[in-house]
Amino acid sequence: MSPRSERTPLLADRPRNSEDSTRRAEEEDAALHGTAVAPSSRRTTGLREIVLFAWALIATAAVIVLAVVLQHHNSTTPTPSPPPSPVPIVPGDPAAGGPYTTSSAKKPKRNLIFMVSDGMGPASLSLTRSFRQFTSSLPIDDVLTLDRHFWGTSRTRSTNSLVTDSAAGATAFSCGRKSYNGAIGMLPGHKPCGTVLEAAKRAGFMTGLVVTTDVTDATPACFASHVDYRMQMDEIALQEVGEGPLGRSVDLILGGGRCHFLPNGTEGSCRVDDVDVVGIAQEKHGWGYKSDRAGFDELRLGKNITLPMLGLFAATDVPFEIDRRNMADVYPSLSEMATTALTALEEATKDSDEGFFLMIEGSRIDHAGHINDPAAQVREVLEYDKTFKIVLDFLEKSDTEGILVATSDHETGGLATAWQAPNELPVYNWHPAVLAKANASAEYCSLLLRQHLATLDSASREDSASLMDWINKNLVIARLGITDAQEYELSTLAENPESAVIIFSRMVSMRARVGWSTHGHSAVDVNIYSSGGAAAEKIRGNVENTDIGKFLSAYLDVDVDEITKELEDKLESLPVTESEAEVQGGETGGHPEAWVKAHWGSDWVWEF
Amino acid sequence: MSPRSERTPLLADRPRNSEDSTRRAEEEDAALHGTAVAPSSRRTTGLREIVLFAWALIATAAVIVLAVVLQHHNSTTPTPSPPPSPVPIVPGDPAAGGPYTTSSAKKPKRNLIFMVSDGMGPASLSLTRSFRQFTSSLPIDDVLTLDRHFWGTSRTRSTNSLVTDSAAGATAFSCGRKSYNGAIGMLPGHKPCGTVLEAAKRAGFMTGLVVTTDVTDATPACFASHVDYRMQMDEIALQEVGEGPLGRSVDLILGGGRCHFLPNGTEGSCRVDDVDVVGIAQEKHGWGYKSDRAGFDELRLGKNITLPMLGLFAATDVPFEIDRRNMADVYPSLSEMATTALTALEEATKDSDEGFFLMIEGSRIDHAGHINDPAAQVREVLEYDKTFKIVLDFLEKSDTEGILVATSDHETGGLATAWQAPNELPVYNWHPAVLAKANASAEYCSLLLRQHLATLDSASREDSASLMDWINKNLVIARLGITDAQEYELSTLAENPESAVIIFSRMVSMRARVGWSTHGHSAVDVNIYSSGGAAAEKIRGNVENTDIGKFLSAYLDVDVDEITKELEDKLESLPVTESEAEVQGGETGGHPEAWVKAHWGSDWVWEF
Repeated sequence: MSPRSERTPLLADRPRNSEDSTRRAEEEDAALHGTAVAPSSRRTTGLREIVLFAWALIATAAVIVLAVVLQHHNSTTPTPSPPPSPVPIVPGDPAAGGPYTTSSAKKPKRNLIFMVSDGMGPASLSLTRSFRQFTSSLPIDDVLTLDRHFWGTSRTRSTNSLVTDSAAGATAFSCGRKSYNGAIGMLPGHKPCGTVLEAAKRAGFMTGLVVTTDVTDATPACFASHVDYRMQMDEIALQEVGEGPLGRSVDLILGGGRCHFLPNGTEGSCRVDDVDVVGIAQEKHGWGYKSDRAGFDELRLGKNITLPMLGLFAATDVPFEIDRRNMADVYPSLSEMATTALTALEEATKDSDEGFFLMIEGSRIDHAGHINDPAAQVREVLEYDKTFKIVLDFLEKSDTEGILVATSDHETGGLATAWQAPNELPVYNWHPAVLAKANASAEYCSLLLRQHLATLDSASREDSASLMDWINKNLVIARLGITDAQEYELSTLAENPESAVIIFSRMVSMRARVGWSTHGHSAVDVNIYSSGGAAAEKIRGNVENTDIGKFLSAYLDVDVDEITKELEDKLESLPVTESEAEVQGGETGGHPEAWVKAHWGSDWVWEF
Repeated sequence: MSPRSERTPLLADRPRNSEDSTRRAEEEDAALHGTAVAPSSRRTTGLREIVLFAWALIATAAVIVLAVVLQHHNSTTPTPSPPPSPVPIVPGDPAAGGPYTTSSAKKPKRNLIFMVSDGMGPASLSLTRSFRQFTSSLPIDDVLTLDRHFWGTSRTRSTNSLVTDSAAGATAFSCGRKSYNGAIGMLPGHKPCGTVLEAAKRAGFMTGLVVTTDVTDATPACFASHVDYRMQMDEIALQEVGEGPLGRSVDLILGGGRCHFLPNGTEGSCRVDDVDVVGIAQEKHGWGYKSDRAGFDELRLGKNITLPMLGLFAATDVPFEIDRRNMADVYPSLSEMATTALTALEEATKDSDEGFFLMIEGSRIDHAGHINDPAAQVREVLEYDKTFKIVLDFLEKSDTEGILVATSDHETGGLATAWQAPNELPVYNWHPAVLAKANASAEYCSLLLRQHLATLDSASREDSASLMDWINKNLVIARLGITDAQEYELSTLAENPESAVIIFSRMVSMRARVGWSTHGHSAVDVNIYSSGGAAAEKIRGNVENTDIGKFLSAYLDVDVDEITKELEDKLESLPVTESEAEVQGGETGGHPEAWVKAHWGSDWVWEF
């Protein structure tokens, strides 16, 4: 084709003929209105053919052009943009539509990985990002993997407080419903709610839970058990292995909290009763069981697992990442456990029509917040960020469609990346170098202090000056990297070793100019991250935490309401284990106040 | 049409004829390849006509269907989805493209409204949202207009600190470049940078600045002046009216800070020199001038303005909204001034090929943060939210294409929506009822206290018991709504009236269980809001504050670099007004430390 013809409209060279054009107009009109055109002379027959041919040619060309445009349009706009005002989705609201509606057409095989950064608020991100820039000498616009996948924010309040706890927060995710602080897969009024994990299992998916705290803690518990109150960990352990109303729903559990699975009276148990949950799991429900690093190594990062598999690698919490990495790999990291779970679940579903649902929690970001320990927190967030990257890479390589959604249940600590010292002017800066110098958490320093005190006789314990010197040399300087400890700080530590964890973290925070407003939770919206894609548009922007929960079951196209009905039938006969009044007074973070008072200030502080 | 024919493809009833279909295939092939089809017999001529007609008919129908589909597609997918991983845009990066590249093709007429919520961090949103739910008895999932238009988050650090001040923050917006704390339209090394407002003016746009603080304060100053240091307000005032190197760039200025425009020695002046900036503005640059409510009313919300117009409605700050509304409308509100600006600028550009650029700042959200006054802050944020809604409505009604982008420069106060009282357990809640009971700001209560003290003789001033009683009755109970003031609180107020503003706000915050970590700024990422649309996809997700600045000039298709070159030429001969060392020590928020010390603790605290 000549360059000219490329730019020239078809038929442009054809001589104009008013009769032709009139006739063409008539025919076009007729064609559009479905009426016949009267036959014309022989000459006009020939003309008619030309006209018809031209018309057909033009129309066909137009079809091709439009089809190409439409095809291009579809391939360059993969997702319809969400409305500028995302309206909260009401269950049963016909306007909701889309992914929130269980469709009759079967969706293709898919995997869903849901990550929870327990207690990570927006300030944790700027804290960790700047810490990483500082320690790795990166440019000032360097970002975390999470930052590159920022998706929106989530509102977190529970039914009975503006500040949620992890139980109400995780119930919002697992059931898609708001509940009271302390609720484990349970709604106000002692009504159980079916979870996305249970519904996925029923629909043929494989399921997994990976955490760095007790696997009976609020977040994992909300996906696989139903109790009135998060403190009922003995019952939660039983339900998680298959002793609940629905039988076994989980295929893979990796984390800490072994003590809840061992009978009272045996070594390492924290159960009130003498039930052997590991034994029941193995004998009645067919679980494999690993309880230490050697056992974890046998799993070969997921290449050598027979499901169901229960891996409990710590008596309670897996140590903070800042400490774990210095413990000769006795404990697996979050990223190691997550890699194991991804590999195992992919292998287990390779011949299945359904994929898997996996919940991965960076559990102890929250604990670092409760302790107000910024040096521990930045390492927890970095390990979570690393795990997020591993999941992204898994999805990219996988042949199965899949999505990653990550969010927090709430913020912990009221963290602020700036702190004004009493009687000083505000400083417009904070100092990541202080966090970089610490090589141990306040928790671990506190443990070392207790261990040291246990070696002393009562006379040595009274020798305050010696104790202060030991603390300064072995903990403050050697572990926290603080070389300018004040006399009053050391004497407070020596005189109040039971509060050492709080004092150590305050010494770090003050020097880093990092502020905290509470040892509990706060109400700030938390961030949502995602691998993206059209489906996730439903949770873009600012949404309720329950919208995330509804999205999870909608993405998998599973029905939590059916599970809820079954649970209601089966749990009707069960007694209410705590009075409603006690449950509803959620201001102590879901713990009965007496329990909180008994534990606060001791090392149990970080188990909230 | 019968129901059947609706579902039946065209021509389905036509008898199949293998010759016909072969022939049709030949002709279609010929048409697609542009070759001629050999003539056939008379019978085939008739057939050919029928075939041609059918082909033309089908093709035409297909055109119509495709056109309708495409039209529908365009109307339902206004914006292409962004990539899942927004990568920070590097200046000059060819990969950036799109709105960041000044295109050679002229863009259609457009308006850009840029809103700044000075000092509003993420916690301010959950604070205000819950306050509104509480005071208006709204459901727990009710949201602000801002929430419905959440777009992303912005990283805020400056070149010389992890914690920016408003000057470096606003320079990032106006110039699209990172700078040092204190910099007004200026880069490190005393290098001026062209601003989006200046470039817009040069390109034929009309321009406006609306604020509730001094119009010479850092945020507005960064759009229309170039000085080394934010404290040079006398110079900033001159440059804003047209005495700068570029002449006049602003068409409309509405806000406070009248004192900087009046010559020293005249009533209400705070200038060091005796320059009459109002006089220069009027006589040399043609400004109209309004200085009070009567003058504002004459503008009839923008329907009666001749530009340029300088409206300075307060000596310094416009009072906090919580106080302003109880002052018989002496001062215009942010929403009133914004409405005025939108109407005036739309009218002024109605016959122009170019639209307008308007910057609207909710300036005093920041001041409430500096004072740590949550009762004042929630009303400031609500007024900002109302103004945001007004701009959205304007854009929806306007015939001109336009966009609204809103963000903060930084967070102020380290606000946390939870606070643990000393020696108490953490509480998982906070109490909006406390903020609802207050009908005055801590700032205004402090002013009333000073006014009362000025009426007392020295003996009465020493009568601590009487003063405590007066404070409690007239300020604490009547204004702050606090009925359980403690003896130590009242005595501290009576003995330290110069610090009353801090004490009043602490009394409110403690009772509401709202925490603060500083009277300065913090480093947490701040939220971005937008009216949305394809163009704004460039700043979706987590971005640098400079990405927002680059977006502003790219959206208007104006060239800040040309302005920068012109400024460099013109400012080369000007002296450096402060030493570089002084400028670079930005930890005191851009103020020389001596200045901060002199003002801290006095009522000037909130001018940061």
